[in-house]
Amino acid sequence: MKLTAQEIYDKLVNEQQILTAIGQIRFHLLDVEIVVKRKDVVGNIIQEWLEGWLIENDIEFSPNPNTQMPPDIFLNPENTAEGLLEIKAFNRESSPAFDIADFKAFINELIEKPYHLDTDYLIFGYVMDEENGDVVIKDVWLKKLWEITRPMENWPITVQYKNNILSKMRPGTWYGRSRHFKFYESKEDYLAAFEETIYQYRETRMLGDQWRNRFKRSYRNHYGVEIEFPQWREIKDRYIF
Amino acid sequence: MKLTAQEIYDKLVNEQQILTAIGQIRFHLLDVEIVVKRKDVVGNIIQEWLEGWLIENDIEFSPNPNTQMPPDIFLNPENTAEGLLEIKAFNRESSPAFDIADFKAFINELIEKPYHLDTDYLIFGYVMDEENGDVVIKDVWLKKLWEITRPMENWPITVQYKNNILSKMRPGTWYGRSRHFKFYESKEDYLAAFEETIYQYRETRMLGDQWRNRFKRSYRNHYGVEIEFPQWREIKDRYIF
Repeated sequence: MKLTAQEIYDKLVNEQQILTAIGQIRFHLLDVEIVVKRKDVVGNIIQEWLEGWLIENDIEFSPNPNTQMPPDIFLNPENTAEGLLEIKAFNRESSPAFDIADFKAFINELIEKPYHLDTDYLIFGYVMDEENGDVVIKDVWLKKLWEITRPMENWPITVQYKNNILSKMRPGTWYGRSRHFKFYESKEDYLAAFEETIYQYRETRMLGDQWRNRFKRSYRNHYGVEIEFPQWREIKDRYIF
Repeated sequence: MKLTAQEIYDKLVNEQQILTAIGQIRFHLLDVEIVVKRKDVVGNIIQEWLEGWLIENDIEFSPNPNTQMPPDIFLNPENTAEGLLEIKAFNRESSPAFDIADFKAFINELIEKPYHLDTDYLIFGYVMDEENGDVVIKDVWLKKLWEITRPMENWPITVQYKNNILSKMRPGTWYGRSRHFKFYESKEDYLAAFEETIYQYRETRMLGDQWRNRFKRSYRNHYGVEIEFPQWREIKDRYIF
């Protein structure tokens, strides 16, 4: 059966009640089974588990053959320009610190595959009980890229910036409250912020002038409609206080 | 029941045939179980598993309340100066890269608790099948510290030396062949090499002159007998070719 990301979310959360389920990582050898109590592996395991769950529930998908690039899976194997799904999981007791994409790679990615902007993010917030190793899914979210991105100190989008290198795009804490920044309300506003980041980062600045037109052309070729998005200076005040 | 390290080894390897058993790491949630295929967690899991196995087999032990210090467990809970056991596991397809102890901490440790020298090392060499996640124990060894230590380039014992810092003591590949170095044949020869390392390392050099006498006094107090060990220069040629 073919399901959309939203239908998958509903099945997990409403029909199968994942928020009340308890999971455990176990290791079995010589008739002795133990419960593994290591938080650092849970995130990766949940991603693996979701693929098992899709198979078990007869939901069509194909994993991305290129495991280094987004998305994790395609929900419409015949048309890999639709139904792109990223699966993310993070320890709900910390901030969401997963990587969204490499910033520089994403500049070209959006031009080559403008539909990546519409990727769905199915995000699990888990907790592991230190005593008994129980894994509980506290929250499941279905989000778009712009809904988990906001401006941050010095940058128009949430990124990892260290030693003068802007490497990965990261989410902000979309379920919390930020006194100074707001999450993006539309893909158009996100695009304005993304373009501004290309300009601000030394290593990509020279790509800035052409990026808007290249992206718009690519979007038109793919969707058959024009996309317009504002300049960062026009929307900035709605997102930074 | 109270068993020695050797009896535990025999039970695992000969009686229960651990070398022919297959283990798996599994994660279960919402009636979907997956096999976890992550090599980086197997080592820690095997250590946890051995404690489960000891309980299941009614073998007395107590875990070290100080999880930061060796040994991992005491096989004689009433007398923590006997039956000290370290549990180590490493990917059999690489070299054994586990830490034995922090070098500087071990200098004092041997003076305060000379019986640490007699700790048994129960070492598992595992392999994980990339396809199906099967974990197989390829080898189990029961070793003493000196049997997994040899001289290396520039140092009389195998250590991790980086950025001019000698941090951890590490094992050599005791089951392989080394053209230039031999593993120690006795605790006495090991002590000679250990003392020499104290002298050679800038940060511990000033401890060298007193260490031999302090260790011998402590050993006599504990065991009631003298221990003599050679000077490094007397045995060096037997271990470095």
